[in-house]
Amino acid sequence: MNGALSALAPHSSKRISEYAQRHPGTIDLTVGLPSFGPPRSFGERLAVLSGSPGESARPEDRYAHSRGAIELRAAIAQVYRSEQGIDLDPDTQLLVTNGAAGALWIAVLTVTEPGDEVLLADPAYMIYPPMIELLGRRVVRVPTSAADGFALHVPDLRKHLTERSRVVLVNSPGNPTGRVTGGGELADLCTFASEHGLYVIHDEVLDRFAYGIEHRSVAALDHHGHGIAVNSLSKRFGVSGWRIGWMVGSPAVIAEAAKAHTFFMLAVSHAVQLAAAAALRDPEADGELSVHAAEIQRHGERFLADVAQLPGLGGTAFPDGGFYAFVDVGEFARLRGIHVEDSIGSAVAEYLLHECGVAVVPGSAFGRAGERFVRMSFAGGPGQLDRALERLAE
Amino acid sequence: MNGALSALAPHSSKRISEYAQRHPGTIDLTVGLPSFGPPRSFGERLAVLSGSPGESARPEDRYAHSRGAIELRAAIAQVYRSEQGIDLDPDTQLLVTNGAAGALWIAVLTVTEPGDEVLLADPAYMIYPPMIELLGRRVVRVPTSAADGFALHVPDLRKHLTERSRVVLVNSPGNPTGRVTGGGELADLCTFASEHGLYVIHDEVLDRFAYGIEHRSVAALDHHGHGIAVNSLSKRFGVSGWRIGWMVGSPAVIAEAAKAHTFFMLAVSHAVQLAAAAALRDPEADGELSVHAAEIQRHGERFLADVAQLPGLGGTAFPDGGFYAFVDVGEFARLRGIHVEDSIGSAVAEYLLHECGVAVVPGSAFGRAGERFVRMSFAGGPGQLDRALERLAE
Repeated sequence: MNGALSALAPHSSKRISEYAQRHPGTIDLTVGLPSFGPPRSFGERLAVLSGSPGESARPEDRYAHSRGAIELRAAIAQVYRSEQGIDLDPDTQLLVTNGAAGALWIAVLTVTEPGDEVLLADPAYMIYPPMIELLGRRVVRVPTSAADGFALHVPDLRKHLTERSRVVLVNSPGNPTGRVTGGGELADLCTFASEHGLYVIHDEVLDRFAYGIEHRSVAALDHHGHGIAVNSLSKRFGVSGWRIGWMVGSPAVIAEAAKAHTFFMLAVSHAVQLAAAAALRDPEADGELSVHAAEIQRHGERFLADVAQLPGLGGTAFPDGGFYAFVDVGEFARLRGIHVEDSIGSAVAEYLLHECGVAVVPGSAFGRAGERFVRMSFAGGPGQLDRALERLAE
Repeated sequence: MNGALSALAPHSSKRISEYAQRHPGTIDLTVGLPSFGPPRSFGERLAVLSGSPGESARPEDRYAHSRGAIELRAAIAQVYRSEQGIDLDPDTQLLVTNGAAGALWIAVLTVTEPGDEVLLADPAYMIYPPMIELLGRRVVRVPTSAADGFALHVPDLRKHLTERSRVVLVNSPGNPTGRVTGGGELADLCTFASEHGLYVIHDEVLDRFAYGIEHRSVAALDHHGHGIAVNSLSKRFGVSGWRIGWMVGSPAVIAEAAKAHTFFMLAVSHAVQLAAAAALRDPEADGELSVHAAEIQRHGERFLADVAQLPGLGGTAFPDGGFYAFVDVGEFARLRGIHVEDSIGSAVAEYLLHECGVAVVPGSAFGRAGERFVRMSFAGGPGQLDRALERLAE
C-alpha cells in the first residue's frame, strides 16, 4: 500500500458534511454549491442525446476526442473571447477534463517532475496539498494573513524559492478566503514567475462570482506561455455533479497535458460535453448566471452583515468573491467559553455542529494560517441562511 | 515541463486512427468498439434525469458520493453475484471511476509507492506502461509468446521479481492478444502473488466477450485481499463515450483508493451513474449483450477464417476472447515484399493503410514481443469486415 496515501486523513469538510447528511436537521454550510440548477439548454441537449437510442452506437456513445469535443472547445474559446477579450485556439490551447480537479492534477503532472515544488498560499483549497503530494511533488506553503485579505505577495514567494520551485498555484476568486487577485497583482505574479521559470496555475472556477473587483484570468495576462488556467462548469451552471472542466494553456503545455490525459482518462463524457457546449453558447443561460451571482451577493451580504452583529463575530466581512465567508472565530470562542483542544476553528466547528446544528468547515482544513477561522458557505439561498442565523444567534 | 512525459510518444494506434478519420475511405480496424449502442434503459433513465430542469439543482446535478452513487454500486454488486457468484459489499468493496482507465491508475497509485515495480505481460494494452511510469512507478515487462497463446507463466514472473515488485497486472480477456486467463491459471497467479505480497490487478473490461473459456474475475478467486478487479460499462453496453468504470477490491484497498479518488476526481458524473445502474439492472439489456457477443463471435470467426486463407496469413486464428485478432504478419510481409525499417508489424500496418486503405495497429505498440504482429478489431460488424476482406485480398 502507498504509505503517503495511508498517512492522509480524508479531508475534514467531508467528515463534517457526511455528519450533516446523516443528521437531516443540520443546516449544512460546508458545501460551496449554489442552489440553482443547470440552464434549460443543458438539459434539453442532453435529453436529445440520451433519448431513443437505436440499434447502433451514435458518435456520442463513443469516445470524445481526447482533448475534448471540438464543439465544446469552440464554446469555451468563445467564453474567453467575450469575458477576457482573448483569442484562444480551440485546437491547441484547450483540454477538457473531469471537472477542474481533473485539470489541476494533469497541469501539475505536466509541468513538474517528481520532487519539484509547488508554491501555494496558506490557507488554500484543501485538495491541493494531498493531490500534489500523491503525485510525488512537494507542497511549499506561503503563509498569508487576514490583515491584508490573504494576499499572496511576491516578496513572500521569493523567500520560499528553491532550485526545485516550478509552479505558483493561485486560486482566485479564492476558496476559502474569498480573495480576488486583481489584474495588476496577477500580472506581477506572472512577471515574477517568468523571471524564475515558474508556471502560474490559476484555479478560476469561481470566476463569475467576483463582486466589485474584476476577475482576470491568467490566460489573459501571461504572455510567456507560463500561465495555465483551470476552470469548470460546476459553479457557473450549478452542475458539479456532471463533471465538466477544462485547462487553458500554451500549445506546448496543452500538447503534453493532452498526452497525459489520454493515458489516464482516455476522454471525458462525450454527450455531457455537448450539453456543456450548448449551455456555454446560450445567452439566456449567461443572463441567468448574472442574476444568480447578483442574488448570491445580495443574500450573502445581508447574511454576513447579520452575522457581524453577533457577539464575537464583529470582524465578519463580505468577501470580494466566491461563495464563502472565512470567519475569524477567536473572539467568539472566548466569549462562549468554548474549550479548544486542536485549533480554535475546529473547536468552534464542533460547537456549532453539536450545539447549534450548523455545519461549517474548520479553517485548519485549509492550512495553519486558517486555524482561527471557520468557512461558511453563503450559496445555499436565503431560506437556509435565515435558519442558520437564527441558530447562531440562540 | 515533465521530461518523462515529453519523452513519451502519443500511442501509435491513436496516430493511425486519426489518419483513418481524416481519410474517410479508410476501413478502420484499429478501434475496439462494438457497433451496438447503449440499451434502451440507459437512455431512458438519462433522458428523465436530463429533461426539464427546474430553478433549483436536483440531487443528480450535484456531486455523487465520491465512491459512486450507491444505486450504481448496488447494481454492480448484483452483476458480480450473478456472473461470478460472489457477494460484494457495495459500501466497502466498490469504487466508481472515469472508465476502467480511471480505476487502473487509482489502483496502481493506491497499492504502490514511487519506484515500486508493476509486472505485466509483453505484449499488453498500450496505455499501461506510460500511465505507470508517469506515476513514478516502474514497468517490468514479462515476455510472452504466441507459441502458447501469450500465457503469463508464474516461473517467468518469478524470474522478474525484485524487492520492489508490488503488482502483477493481468488483462483477461486480453487486448491485444485475445487470451483468456482461465480460472485455474488466475488462481495460480493469486497464490503466487500472495506468497510474495503482491497485488493482482485484473483488467476485465472484456469480461462478457469470452468465447469457450469461462471468464473468471480475480474478485472471485482471491481470498487474501490482494486481488483488484478493474472493469467498465464501455464494452458491455457500447458506451465508451459515457465513461463509467469501477474498481473491486478489499475494504482496505477501496478505502485508500476512494480517498485518492476524492483528491483527484471528487467524483464522476452523477446522472450517468444512475443511467448505468438502470442498464446493469435491466434483464433485457443483459439479453441483448449476450446476443451482441454471439454476433461478434460469429462474424469474427468467419472473418478470421477468410483472413487465414490469404497468402502469408495462414496462421491467423480466432481468439479466446475480446474483439481483436493479433495476427502474425511475418510471412505476409515477406510474400508481398514489404520493406521493413522499424518492425515488421509497423511496416505491414503502413502498407495496409496506404496500399489497401485498411487501418490496423502495429503490434509493436503493445511491446517488443508484438513486433511481428498487427492488431485487427473484428467488432465493427459484418459489412465493415467484408469490405476489409475484399481490400486485403486485392
